[in-house]
Amino acid sequence: MVDAVAGTDAGAGGEARRITAAVLVVGDEILSGRTRDSNSGTIAARLTMMGIDLSEIRVVPDETDRIVEAVNALRARYTYVFTTGGIGPTHDDITADAVAAAFGVGIDVDPRARAILATHYATEADLTPARLRMARIPDGAELIANPLTKAPGFRIGNVYVMAGVPKIMEAMFEGIAPTLEVGAVVLSETVDCPYGEGTIGTALAAVQKAHPDTAIGSYPTFAGTHFSTKLVVRSRDAEALARGVAAVRAMLAEIAAADLASTASY
Amino acid sequence: MVDAVAGTDAGAGGEARRITAAVLVVGDEILSGRTRDSNSGTIAARLTMMGIDLSEIRVVPDETDRIVEAVNALRARYTYVFTTGGIGPTHDDITADAVAAAFGVGIDVDPRARAILATHYATEADLTPARLRMARIPDGAELIANPLTKAPGFRIGNVYVMAGVPKIMEAMFEGIAPTLEVGAVVLSETVDCPYGEGTIGTALAAVQKAHPDTAIGSYPTFAGTHFSTKLVVRSRDAEALARGVAAVRAMLAEIAAADLASTASY
Repeated sequence: MVDAVAGTDAGAGGEARRITAAVLVVGDEILSGRTRDSNSGTIAARLTMMGIDLSEIRVVPDETDRIVEAVNALRARYTYVFTTGGIGPTHDDITADAVAAAFGVGIDVDPRARAILATHYATEADLTPARLRMARIPDGAELIANPLTKAPGFRIGNVYVMAGVPKIMEAMFEGIAPTLEVGAVVLSETVDCPYGEGTIGTALAAVQKAHPDTAIGSYPTFAGTHFSTKLVVRSRDAEALARGVAAVRAMLAEIAAADLASTASY
Repeated sequence: MVDAVAGTDAGAGGEARRITAAVLVVGDEILSGRTRDSNSGTIAARLTMMGIDLSEIRVVPDETDRIVEAVNALRARYTYVFTTGGIGPTHDDITADAVAAAFGVGIDVDPRARAILATHYATEADLTPARLRMARIPDGAELIANPLTKAPGFRIGNVYVMAGVPKIMEAMFEGIAPTLEVGAVVLSETVDCPYGEGTIGTALAAVQKAHPDTAIGSYPTFAGTHFSTKLVVRSRDAEALARGVAAVRAMLAEIAAADLASTASY
């Protein structure tokens, strides 16, 4: 089975401009191990489906300097940067201010964001200072809609600032996705391999060398007593992918034949 | 309930030297979203229990330049760097060579590592070129034992290079852990809060300001129609922690009393 995405220019070859991205996760709770980050994996899978190469993930603490440094390093390097976390109403939510600092622009309560929040609360008095923190938007940024709980994210330059709560992040991302420039989708096919990497490694390297228009990854699973492996062949070109997969299957058939004639395993 | 770790110098105060760490995850499969990284979360939780501050997580692709750059950036900045992934026997396993390049040292099949692998296979002939890739160790590195599948990791300088398969990584880490310098453990206590962050944010900021010897984090959960929040108070000092927690509880009691008198909710 070829994993791909309908409706894209999948298989059109590798000529398209490469679109790259980084995910920046802001949160002490991830670094302490208290919370497992699921947002970066969610974004990774979505970007892959869109033909955008996620090239780096960073997790940094709730510290202004660290966020500023990471935002500036990543936005200079990649087409897009997606941040998650730190845009709520509490004192430890400092991402918006840090992103403004990274861009060297001012930040204040934004009338558009304030108006959105106002529709969400019964009275003006409910717009407490804490809640109004969620309306702090860097100068020049566009809002990112939050269909679930109203408080918006924002885009400034190539940096998309989203909430950390997974459901809200996902809703924000789905709003952003249609606006992103996408590349040719990387097609991939997975071949299950009953052997460990030590058994196939030499032959697999030869297959990779003979098929430079594919990228072949090898992902071992250790089942307590022995390894099995998933061999993932990737290419932006459907025919190259098919050739690579056929070569991997032929390699496994050869190893199986040789295996019958010996006791080698692992 | 105070989360802490028996047998450490927990609660001894914050005087100890701060021990910091970074995790560097090497793997295209994480960046493509194919595989969810669990190793960084596992290491994060273990380091927190040991009083080591995990200060950054980076995920980079299977590309030598990117690994070299990340290793050098992180090892200059933190007490320890833990890498996972890319030390198996296949062509895409390039972490050992990249780490050698980062340190500017040579790398070759290491006699100690080769001897370990030899005990694992029936014959010399089983030590294929692919398997011998797993014995490539940078000059001057110490081996990290792999009690599960033999092929070792290694330490060079302050960089610990471990396998990407979670069970093997965990076994390697447990071997390393007793050798690490540890700090005072950060104690934490979690207070469940039935309100959203917008309701508590202003008061919580005041509590944080009044208790600078604690770090108070606020972690919202969105349950489809409303938010609840977990308030986590952290300190290396047990008494400071207790004071901070008491202040958070008092704050919640006040909000609950006010809530009875109004219809406000998040």
